Amino acid sequence: MPTPQQMCDVVAAYFNAFDAEDADAIAALFANNAEVHDPVGSAPHIGIKAIRAFYGESVAVRPKLVQQGPTRTASDYAAFAFTVTLPTGQRIDVIDTFKFDSAGKVIEMRAYFGPLNMHGF
Amino acid sequence: MPTPQQMCDVVAAYFNAFDAEDADAIAALFANNAEVHDPVGSAPHIGIKAIRAFYGESVAVRPKLVQQGPTRTASDYAAFAFTVTLPTGQRIDVIDTFKFDSAGKVIEMRAYFGPLNMHGF
Repeated sequence: MPTPQQMCDVVAAYFNAFDAEDADAIAALFANNAEVHDPVGSAPHIGIKAIRAFYGESVAVRPKLVQQGPTRTASDYAAFAFTVTLPTGQRIDVIDTFKFDSAGKVIEMRAYFGPLNMHGF
Repeated sequence: MPTPQQMCDVVAAYFNAFDAEDADAIAALFANNAEVHDPVGSAPHIGIKAIRAFYGESVAVRPKLVQQGPTRTASDYAAFAFTVTLPTGQRIDVIDTFKFDSAGKVIEMRAYFGPLNMHGF
């Protein structure tokens, strides 16, 4: 199981990869058989190919992610809060959780946001 | 399923009940068969009696909870970030998720925090 610091480092790498609009670098953080639920309740993206495609579409809209407060870790999970601001000025408040596998890759991502968290849409 | 606003109201009631050091009011937000994982990875408190006892112990140490950023909701979940400050000045950074049942009661609570999130201990 990854250490708390290793999980925090993956979260930091996730933000850095978004800053660089680098979907390959984002996908590299995930396990081959990972699931991405974004948002929770929607049909998940399952497997690294679907996940890479999803993040390719995500970075194409040039979102700016700003973390709010420190990454929390517990057991094999990290949780972190952030805002997503689009070039149009629209903003979404989000909390994500990452579950890690024994190799330190993200095996499940869950994004929590809903209509009350979407501003300017 | 509760609405996003109803889930946000339950989260607000959770903070208000902690402010009032009222474990009965906290427990009243949970379903009879709820589970509390605090922190994630520890043995859960299962059932309303165990949950009431857990929150009784929690409020007895007089923690002050301050929410950080808005409550996020997705499907039947809420997620929210906060700090816990103890009378000793020790602080813990936490993110919680609540899963709701169809009656709007919390059926599962998961608290994310770990050693890197505990300050002054």
